[in-house]
Amino acid sequence: MGEFIPDSAVVAPNKDLEGHTLLILTNEDLPDGYEKHLRAKFPGLKLVHSHFNPWLNTNAPIPNVTDEDWEEVTVLLTGPRLPTIKEAPKLQLVHLQSAGANYVLENPLFKDTKIPFCTANGVAGPQIAEWVICTYLAYQHRIPHYLDNMRDGYWERRSGPMEITDVVSQRIGILGYGSIGRQVARIATAMGMEVYAYTNRPRPTPESRRDHSWHPPGLGDPEGSLPSRWFSGTTPAELGGFLSSGLDLLVVAVPLTPETRGMLGAAQLKLLAGKKTYVSNIGRGPTIVTDDLVAALNEGWIRGAALDVTDPEPLPKGHPLWGMNNVIITPHVSGNSKSYTARLLAILDVNLEKLSEGKTDFINQVSRKRGY
Amino acid sequence: MGEFIPDSAVVAPNKDLEGHTLLILTNEDLPDGYEKHLRAKFPGLKLVHSHFNPWLNTNAPIPNVTDEDWEEVTVLLTGPRLPTIKEAPKLQLVHLQSAGANYVLENPLFKDTKIPFCTANGVAGPQIAEWVICTYLAYQHRIPHYLDNMRDGYWERRSGPMEITDVVSQRIGILGYGSIGRQVARIATAMGMEVYAYTNRPRPTPESRRDHSWHPPGLGDPEGSLPSRWFSGTTPAELGGFLSSGLDLLVVAVPLTPETRGMLGAAQLKLLAGKKTYVSNIGRGPTIVTDDLVAALNEGWIRGAALDVTDPEPLPKGHPLWGMNNVIITPHVSGNSKSYTARLLAILDVNLEKLSEGKTDFINQVSRKRGY
Repeated sequence: MGEFIPDSAVVAPNKDLEGHTLLILTNEDLPDGYEKHLRAKFPGLKLVHSHFNPWLNTNAPIPNVTDEDWEEVTVLLTGPRLPTIKEAPKLQLVHLQSAGANYVLENPLFKDTKIPFCTANGVAGPQIAEWVICTYLAYQHRIPHYLDNMRDGYWERRSGPMEITDVVSQRIGILGYGSIGRQVARIATAMGMEVYAYTNRPRPTPESRRDHSWHPPGLGDPEGSLPSRWFSGTTPAELGGFLSSGLDLLVVAVPLTPETRGMLGAAQLKLLAGKKTYVSNIGRGPTIVTDDLVAALNEGWIRGAALDVTDPEPLPKGHPLWGMNNVIITPHVSGNSKSYTARLLAILDVNLEKLSEGKTDFINQVSRKRGY
Repeated sequence: MGEFIPDSAVVAPNKDLEGHTLLILTNEDLPDGYEKHLRAKFPGLKLVHSHFNPWLNTNAPIPNVTDEDWEEVTVLLTGPRLPTIKEAPKLQLVHLQSAGANYVLENPLFKDTKIPFCTANGVAGPQIAEWVICTYLAYQHRIPHYLDNMRDGYWERRSGPMEITDVVSQRIGILGYGSIGRQVARIATAMGMEVYAYTNRPRPTPESRRDHSWHPPGLGDPEGSLPSRWFSGTTPAELGGFLSSGLDLLVVAVPLTPETRGMLGAAQLKLLAGKKTYVSNIGRGPTIVTDDLVAALNEGWIRGAALDVTDPEPLPKGHPLWGMNNVIITPHVSGNSKSYTARLLAILDVNLEKLSEGKTDFINQVSRKRGY
């Protein structure tokens, strides 16, 4: 810890962000009109944008950014590529382009300063929720089967009403009730499903159920009011109670941590056998023990699975999961969306606004205690 | 018009439905506990159920139903198979198992009496809405493409965020805002879409926007409050205004009538070219001119289509629609659901309740003026 770094808590209001420089390192084009929007809102703010992927070549020179820019930058939108404390002496806010912050935890700029770091938490909620709902409905309504028939130009007449179960009054269990799970809950509720939520920390009060991270206006479940039951805990017994609660659909939406790695193995998957729960994983592959998932599908403990993540990734050719007709696999793409950058900049906007007002309660701020 | 038929308007309250006989002609089993439920609610009501498909063999004898049953029946749940006025002299209410009533309009029991006829309108809303949402999201999220990759065990790494457009802030236009369209609107709203509605009759007031037909509790849009714009009319100009309103998705949910047959031809489909609107048809095939739909897909006026109905049906082998990779076709199955009978009986329950209270404002009643 060399020089003095200003604590953001003492920054004075500065409505126009006079004297501030925003440096954006992203390979994407900025949306049309973004610069104009920024100039209108914060006339004093200087914008520097470099077409640079901060995840790649972290030591390569950054085009279009001078030493002077680094000296002047006060707000930085980046990924793993970070300046040293000395290089960017005026830095007051670092905004990450990812929902996770794991890669900055050991960086001196994070460890040895009090500069607020904020994440993109919430930008992927809508598209991943759509993926979850889509793949589940596709299974329930036999869409892969009818796509197969299309190859043969075959109009199947014998289909009867008893082959389709719609989701009205079904129960969905959401393991990890963050920005993705909450948007899944919103759509599921609109379809008539009952929502059960599971979080590691207990959420007994309305305030504890609230989600303070960013979400697109009008979407998600910021109040945490949609679940009719809320489970919590970290022990196998607590998790088991949730898994045994008669779920038609289980959505796995927890981050990968030492606690969640292998959290769903044979013992847990067997608890789903009563309802043959359909399993949807959009978290991380290693949360489910792959061999046990294959067993669960082969033994009929579960009636199908939708997997955007697997363990390993890429899933190798010839892996038994590829050949199962009650499984839908996509190659870790559910978070993709053309709207990613626009949503990211909407979060940045909220925080620039706070900065201009001299506030320090930035949205999506990484806790230095918890590391997320 | 022979004998006197009691007008249901003068039926006195009869809480237990003492002396009433309910005859159910359906090939489906009645749900577990239905008889018990009925006995508890209406101890005076006699139930006769015949496993008989009222759409088939309309002149075949009906198993398990005696002449005496016909003499005693007061409430009949059926399809096209109807008794003569003489055979069922005590009939007070006819409940159909279909959403449409077209097949009874010329029957003397309908034409020459005032016996209320009610339909199953609303039973298919949830499953068809799920089909619409599922197929559209499948297109947006490239699910058919990834299912293709699964055949080859191919984990495609090159997918980028720009290949996926999620539906947040997209605009959905619903042509025909009945029980199906309203449930589509509910889910679309939960996903962050903007809803435009189109009805043939204008709906300028809150009361006119209300839907009085049955819907599963908590679902649909009975108040008609979800659309941000409401179009109406029967002229090409009025329809054109709706089709030109910047729709990302057009859902065709009108019944087939002389007015709706061929309503969407080349001139109309060209109006969708600005946004390359995706077209979803769950109404009836002949509402869209098939050759013009093929042209619209070939010329790129629309970017894809989901078709549960086609013209002709079955769609013959070798038809150009089968081979298009931006089209999803299913063989007129979107209304299928295991819950069909349970929902039908829920509507019947509402009307039995009204009958027992001496009320005549039955739900889903067919207007003898409009014929639906």
